[in-house]
Amino acid sequence: MHKTLLAGAVIAMFSGQAAAQSWVLTDTQGTEKGDWRIDSRQLKLSGEPFTLEQQVLHGGKQEGSKVLTLTSKNGLTIALSPTRGMDLLHVNGHGVRLGWDSPVDEVVNPAYINLESRNGLGWLEGFNEMMVRCGFEWTGHPVTKDGRIYTLHGKAGNTPASKVEVIVDDQAPHEIRIRGLLKENTFKKARLETWTELRYVPGADSFTLHDVLTNQADYPHDYEIIYHSNFSTPILEENARFLAPVKSVSPFNDYAKKGLENWQTYGAPTKDFDEMVFNLQPIADSNGKTVAAVVNSKGDKGAAIEFDTRQLPVLTMWKNTDTLKQGYVTGIEPGTNYAYPVTIEKEQGRVKQLQPGQSAEFTLTYSLLKDASAVQKVEERIKTLQGETKINVEQTPIAVE
Amino acid sequence: MHKTLLAGAVIAMFSGQAAAQSWVLTDTQGTEKGDWRIDSRQLKLSGEPFTLEQQVLHGGKQEGSKVLTLTSKNGLTIALSPTRGMDLLHVNGHGVRLGWDSPVDEVVNPAYINLESRNGLGWLEGFNEMMVRCGFEWTGHPVTKDGRIYTLHGKAGNTPASKVEVIVDDQAPHEIRIRGLLKENTFKKARLETWTELRYVPGADSFTLHDVLTNQADYPHDYEIIYHSNFSTPILEENARFLAPVKSVSPFNDYAKKGLENWQTYGAPTKDFDEMVFNLQPIADSNGKTVAAVVNSKGDKGAAIEFDTRQLPVLTMWKNTDTLKQGYVTGIEPGTNYAYPVTIEKEQGRVKQLQPGQSAEFTLTYSLLKDASAVQKVEERIKTLQGETKINVEQTPIAVE
Amino acid sequence: MHKTLLAGAVIAMFSGQAAAQSWVLTDTQGTEKGDWRIDSRQLKLSGEPFTLEQQVLHGGKQEGSKVLTLTSKNGLTIALSPTRGMDLLHVNGHGVRLGWDSPVDEVVNPAYINLESRNGLGWLEGFNEMMVRCGFEWTGHPVTKDGRIYTLHGKAGNTPASKVEVIVDDQAPHEIRIRGLLKENTFKKARLETWTELRYVPGADSFTLHDVLTNQADYPHDYEIIYHSNFSTPILEENARFLAPVKSVSPFNDYAKKGLENWQTYGAPTKDFDEMVFNLQPIADSNGKTVAAVVNSKGDKGAAIEFDTRQLPVLTMWKNTDTLKQGYVTGIEPGTNYAYPVTIEKEQGRVKQLQPGQSAEFTLTYSLLKDASAVQKVEERIKTLQGETKINVEQTPIAVE
Repeated sequence: MHKTLLAGAVIAMFSGQAAAQSWVLTDTQGTEKGDWRIDSRQLKLSGEPFTLEQQVLHGGKQEGSKVLTLTSKNGLTIALSPTRGMDLLHVNGHGVRLGWDSPVDEVVNPAYINLESRNGLGWLEGFNEMMVRCGFEWTGHPVTKDGRIYTLHGKAGNTPASKVEVIVDDQAPHEIRIRGLLKENTFKKARLETWTELRYVPGADSFTLHDVLTNQADYPHDYEIIYHSNFSTPILEENARFLAPVKSVSPFNDYAKKGLENWQTYGAPTKDFDEMVFNLQPIADSNGKTVAAVVNSKGDKGAAIEFDTRQLPVLTMWKNTDTLKQGYVTGIEPGTNYAYPVTIEKEQGRVKQLQPGQSAEFTLTYSLLKDASAVQKVEERIKTLQGETKINVEQTPIAVE
Repeated sequence: MHKTLLAGAVIAMFSGQAAAQSWVLTDTQGTEKGDWRIDSRQLKLSGEPFTLEQQVLHGGKQEGSKVLTLTSKNGLTIALSPTRGMDLLHVNGHGVRLGWDSPVDEVVNPAYINLESRNGLGWLEGFNEMMVRCGFEWTGHPVTKDGRIYTLHGKAGNTPASKVEVIVDDQAPHEIRIRGLLKENTFKKARLETWTELRYVPGADSFTLHDVLTNQADYPHDYEIIYHSNFSTPILEENARFLAPVKSVSPFNDYAKKGLENWQTYGAPTKDFDEMVFNLQPIADSNGKTVAAVVNSKGDKGAAIEFDTRQLPVLTMWKNTDTLKQGYVTGIEPGTNYAYPVTIEKEQGRVKQLQPGQSAEFTLTYSLLKDASAVQKVEERIKTLQGETKINVEQTPIAVE
Repeated sequence: MHKTLLAGAVIAMFSGQAAAQSWVLTDTQGTEKGDWRIDSRQLKLSGEPFTLEQQVLHGGKQEGSKVLTLTSKNGLTIALSPTRGMDLLHVNGHGVRLGWDSPVDEVVNPAYINLESRNGLGWLEGFNEMMVRCGFEWTGHPVTKDGRIYTLHGKAGNTPASKVEVIVDDQAPHEIRIRGLLKENTFKKARLETWTELRYVPGADSFTLHDVLTNQADYPHDYEIIYHSNFSTPILEENARFLAPVKSVSPFNDYAKKGLENWQTYGAPTKDFDEMVFNLQPIADSNGKTVAAVVNSKGDKGAAIEFDTRQLPVLTMWKNTDTLKQGYVTGIEPGTNYAYPVTIEKEQGRVKQLQPGQSAEFTLTYSLLKDASAVQKVEERIKTLQGETKINVEQTPIAVE
């Protein structure tokens, strides 16, 4: 049930006892808000103050790109872009930044990107997010099959959201939900629709992504998804550590073999390092839940991602500790897949499929670890999950591109 | 002669005794109207009331797309998109809809389409029109020749109109003309300009397209055009029929061979049907005129297209009676060509050419058949045109892609 | 040092004794001006009156393109497009036009261009400038290497400027500077940033381009640049002449061999002429400066480009004296390179490289030659530079594509 409370924007939704106000920022059926702003004071909500603000960017290749920023004074500031598939640009709180500095310093409007350029690497002309969804039609490194390029990491991250809405719970602690609908619809080829959702309680140090991918077609459709989550300074630094409970690790390719020995430790920005990628099989608890994290050298800052291995069975760790100007960054990438081309992933049986009308859900909780205590808590949980299991360090890549 | 009557928009044009008001909605030389509206009441015109309204769409990949809608209360409502080559989106009247439901449910701005993607099938990411011009540099299925992709169905349907104007006849019955200029101009490659025109008399059940393609270059230039006209429910249904006077029918490919027996009858939405395509040679009257139609099972609803075989000598019938969600639809496609790749069409001599400065005209009248009487009238005309001519049912495709 | 004088736009800059006002028209960090205008009267500046005006264009494929026009009543009118890489569209003064009439008659927004289309010739769908920067990642004819297309003339000319500012000197003669920042930034591939600058003193018949290209990456990066400068009527005509002091001329390909005999003289618009290209080695003075020009038959109109052979060692002369409708035009193209594909240029050692953080500067002065005296002056300078040096006319192209 929907009931309009105020002209234009505010709607109350009652589902059981829950009541909330909501704002439609974009709707292909009619609504479009450009620059827009609400805040807790104006809404007369008590508790942790927050602001939600949308801006339309201009200049360069970001002409027309929208950025929606959720600011919580004592918690996190989260910036995402509806124009770029609801990707998370960066998150800040307690002096810690989740995100990185890409040479791409604009929020590039997909209208200016040709994903097929550079032999399928056009995605790199817009890549600078803290979290970009790599999917859903396909993901992974580009490959040409039967004359067709499966471009790097798919199209979701460069798909403007067809619908964007913000929902604020009437009841304390006034959870905020930012929802966006991504359509990968092509006649005869795909009808994959994803409702992305970000949930945040003002003042908290964590937020949750809850995405629902539905195959709206009448035929089964393959899908792949990697949550490409990227962190740099001030967390990433010399002797920063990667933490995750894993059964096995294998090098993505020959170059990564050289980094196997200390794969869980990061180096300082290093010229000619380029990137090493490691394929991981995570260990989960009895509910399928696991967590991976990157923490700084001192162990008093970090980022953790909790995810569900029933939804996202594998984990890619991307060590791109090249120089700062090249984009010093590490990726923690829960996925249905590794980053091999879709042809290899298919061959090796990791590509999933949705039946007609079927949905897949993905729930990930991102935490900013603001101090030693927060880091320690995650580290202990990971230790517990690892338990007595020895990490099987495989020396040979499972595939060759 | 042009004379400004009112500031800004209204111009009187006198050509012989004809006088009309006109509005320029888009002109690369200066004018640009976004949201815009006129109606017969405001213009103080008697007779059938009408409204003309332009809207700029937002959200998803339709950001910035314009839709111009002509509404005639007792006749038709016609929606077209200047941003998408003056394509007709859908037409409605008397409870009948001309058009279909594509999985692509946005009016996709060509800025978000890469026609070369998917090995030349990028056009499918925007395809949902009731009528899309497939041409004019080339049309048909994609083919790569000398490293270059001739993309599916050419560029016209994804070319934003450079000039758009609306003209309303001063005299009853106040015929409305909507004109749009499409430029396929590329240095050293093409200078093909098309003035598209839609003519409609408020209250009528028919409208006419009158397009003039001109080769503005100093060299001869090949062209191809298919008027890809698409119909679904409530006309298309089990036992709906395709009607046209034809000399011959041949299957487009091996799969269509299986459908030759009952090629003129449609099935209900059928899983795994995919599409069958039939190449037809229409029979025309002494003036070159012919007509093709699709009518529902009961014979009381339909759509007919009258065209000129001197302009558009061949006819493609596209039977895409797959499930509703996949886009249950049939195409009636008068053209200079069949839908084979341009290389094959060229080889088989169907590709036309324009000399420098030469124009080609295309006139098609679309009728919404609202009742049994309207259907019967078209059916009788087709019967007459067919006369004693027996349909030559060829068993073998004339070409292999 | 920056100091705000007036709210919003006007800033005074003091560097030594120089003071100026400046306006930011575009800045990805926040500022965006659409339609905008200033003039010398409003600024209360004495001397030659001038106007600076920005317009946002609409319609066709120029939707959203910006054009910035500098008008000096007694000097030049210079139009450039921030959306198209600060390219110069056309320059007019004293009844002489620098520029040409391309079949592409819109200022095409790069959002509507796929540079990879037509097997790497997509650039031709937007080409109509008086001066377009061909670079900087690569330039020249397209070539596919390792599955990747190096598209015709690179991306700079189709890169919307990330920052645009206008600076007007406080002191007479109130030199105007129009600056634009182009970013060719792609993760792992390039971090080339170019500050383009156009300097013009109101009333003058010349303007200067001063571009600074910087490799912002931590690795060396190749670059190429050709200043593709194009002239037509009223300068180009039968018996118009190309003037430049050169050591040698060689035909670009076999077709150009046929034109070697009278390579410095132009024909009237000629059907089937297509294009001939000549590679030239310019002779410079002791400071590296040289000049090339095209002058009309009578020798009383022309265009000259002064450039620095230490920055731009080679010169391409493009003779495209086909018919008017095809784009009757000649290109005078100082560059680091000839127009061969980057693979050939690399092989033959003409591709330059920038070390991390290193910059390259390019300074070119364009002059409109308004009368016989202006033409004569340039001709004499060229004669002096040529001196006793005989032109080595090579018969064989130095490379085969």
